Parts: sequence; structure tokens; C-alpha cells
Amino acid sequence: MERTLDQQLTKIRQKLLRMGGLVEQMIDQAVQGLLQRDSVYADKVPEQDQEVDHLEMEIDELCMTVLVRNQPTAVDLRFLVAVMKINNDLERMGDSAVNIVQSVVQLNEEPPLKPYIDLPRMSSQVQEMVHDSLDAFVSRDAELARQVLGSDDAIDGLYKQIFRELLTFMIEDPKSVSRALHLLLIARNLERIADHATNIAEDVIYYVEGRDVRHSMESQTAAAGS
Amino acid sequence: MERTLDQQLTKIRQKLLRMGGLVEQMIDQAVQGLLQRDSVYADKVPEQDQEVDHLEMEIDELCMTVLVRNQPTAVDLRFLVAVMKINNDLERMGDSAVNIVQSVVQLNEEPPLKPYIDLPRMSSQVQEMVHDSLDAFVSRDAELARQVLGSDDAIDGLYKQIFRELLTFMIEDPKSVSRALHLLLIARNLERIADHATNIAEDVIYYVEGRDVRHSMESQTAAAGS
Repeated sequence: MERTLDQQLTKIRQKLLRMGGLVEQMIDQAVQGLLQRDSVYADKVPEQDQEVDHLEMEIDELCMTVLVRNQPTAVDLRFLVAVMKINNDLERMGDSAVNIVQSVVQLNEEPPLKPYIDLPRMSSQVQEMVHDSLDAFVSRDAELARQVLGSDDAIDGLYKQIFRELLTFMIEDPKSVSRALHLLLIARNLERIADHATNIAEDVIYYVEGRDVRHSMESQTAAAGS
Repeated sequence: MERTLDQQLTKIRQKLLRMGGLVEQMIDQAVQGLLQRDSVYADKVPEQDQEVDHLEMEIDELCMTVLVRNQPTAVDLRFLVAVMKINNDLERMGDSAVNIVQSVVQLNEEPPLKPYIDLPRMSSQVQEMVHDSLDAFVSRDAELARQVLGSDDAIDGLYKQIFRELLTFMIEDPKSVSRALHLLLIARNLERIADHATNIAEDVIYYVEGRDVRHSMESQTAAAGS
């Protein structure tokens, strides 16, 4: 039996949310593995990444089927295009979580370089951005999406700070180089995850309001106001 | 006057190719700035990036207009979805070129760390992947796209080699840390550009054959055979 358009869109939304939930879990487990210095937390991340990859393809296929069969217009079409973009960003967030886990496993085999201060701050802010961007999608909340855009600059600032500090470590103590480099890669991956959350927020605004705010003054201003 | 579907698709194809040409130029200028140790080569890259950002939005809007007005099916629909994905990958390649330029400018202010050997090899292979992926799109050549998939593993291998070498530099000579780190970031950005070329190649196969080869054994085997 042919499903109605609404049923199809609901199914797609649910799958995307399952994927979003999984990616949030992956990021959290990678971060816990780092902060608790226990790689067990991050054990399941590579496996979950396979499920995420699978969901990405499934969601794209569902979207294509609806585009072909139902030829949706206006908000439904914007919804589908937004889903295909968000889908892609979530998959890349999953990859970043896997990258973080690879560094975490290496780090946990050596004594800690120093007490982490900025990294926990950065990771909790990034996780909040991811959560809010998905929340904005579910509740079609363009205002919440704009708040996410406004957070990205703070993350870039934290990343630069962490970068400078780790650079100093590496210069002052050759024994710290390998660990500092892994911490740097983790910070870089967190910064990328924040970028993807920003992309999702832009897609939500486009889906809800039909306006493309990428590379716009609005996007810049929101960011500068953070 | 309403344009025909074919006219619209031709216009979209041309815009995407202009964007692809620009991104290829940006990458080349960034790489020349590095290899010739002359930042002048890379001067125009940030400006070109703005044009790329603009084209990205224009192309997405054109695709949406065609989706709404013409409700294309089969290969035309696959073309449009592929274009929207390729569009996104090209824009991110442009961002990576800008990142490379930022590191190049820093590096050119200091004496060279060492003669570059692997970086020129890596950059010319990456540029070839980018060129081939766009060529495969223009000529609807799924075989050429498969060759691009097959090159990605070699790039990952080069990246790991460069990473190890630079790590050794940093550990042995604290004065090298900052320069080695910039070289590492450049290699990382080249590796990302190769990832985006791989994505484009996958989109070309999907567009031409209607098959999704992402995360598949085919994609793995092609990669392993390189």
C-alpha cells in the first residue's frame, strides 16, 4: 500500500532523529572517554558509526523516493532538502567522534599532560550546540537555531586558546609533543562538530522561513554577538 | 519567459563548473604559495572564496526552483541532488584552501623547516583527484569516478607518513614546533580536500548509475586496490 506523503515525512523525521540521538551519544562517549581517562566509555563509538553510515544512506533513499513519487512543494520540499543536508552533517559529526576516540585511546595509555580545563568547557558547549540545533529542527524553532549560530564564535575562540596553550607545551617540553598533538586534534574535531551544528542551524532556518542565511550578514552578526 | 528544463539544467551545470574551476584555482594558488614560498601566489584566495560562497547559494537556489517548477524525475532528479551535494563539497574545499593559505602566510615569514618532499607529492595527487572528480561529473564517467575512489587510500597513507615525520621534528627540535604544526595543518587540509573529491566521485556514480556506493564494499575495494 502506498503511504501518504505525511506518513513518509514522519518516517523520515523519525529516522533523522534516531540518527541525531546516536551521534549525540557518540560525541558524549568520546568526550567521557577523554575526561574520565577511560577508553571503555568510547568502546562502542566505531560500531555506532556504522549504524550512522547506514542511516545516512537509508534517509537519502527515502527522501529521493518521496521526491520522485510525491513531487512535494513549498515547505515539504524545503523539509526534504534540509533533511538531506542535515543527514550529511550528522554523518560527518559521527566521523569526527570516531577521530576523537582514536586520539583518546592513545592519550589514555600515557600519564595525563595536565589537568584539562578548556577542553571540558569547549566540549560541553559544543554538545549543547549539537543538541540545540537538533531541538530547533524538531520544534521548527528558528530563534533557537539563531542562538546556535551565535555560539560558533565562542567555540572558535576557545579553539584558538587551546591551540596556543598546547603549542607552548610542545615548545617547552619535547616529551609533551605527542600528547599535546592528540589534544590539539581533539579540539580541532570538536571545532568541526560545532561547524556542522552551525550548518544544521542554517538549514533549520531555511526550512522554517525559506531564507538562506549562509554566509550572510545575519549569520555574521549572530556569531559576533556571542 | 519560462525556460525549459534542459536550459535550466545546462545553466546549473555551467555554474557548478565555474565554481569547480574556481576551487581548483584556489587550491593551486594555495599550494604554489607553499611550494614557491611566496605568499603573493595565494593573495586572491580569500576573495575567490567569497565568490565560491556566493555561487554555492545561487546554485542551491536554482536547483530548488527547478525542483518546484519542473518536478523532474529519474536522471534529472538524480542530477539535481548530485549537484546540491557536489556544491556543498566544493564550498568546503574552498574553505580548506583558505585554511591552507593562512598557514602558508605564517610559514613564509620564517626560514624553511626542511625541503618539502612528501607535501608536493601529496598536493599534486590531491589536485589530480579534484580535477578527475569534476571531469567525471562533466563527462558522466563512472569509471573515472571509481579511479578517484581508488586514490583516497594513497592520500591517507601520505598523510600518516607526513604526520609521523613532522612529529619527529617537533620532538627533536622545539624551534621547529610552530612550523611543523602549520605543515601538519596543511597536510590535514589537503587530506580533507581529497575526502571531498571522493564524495564528489561517489555522487557522480550515483548520478550516472543510480547506485549509492557510499560506505560500500565497492568503495572499500576500489580504495584498497590503489
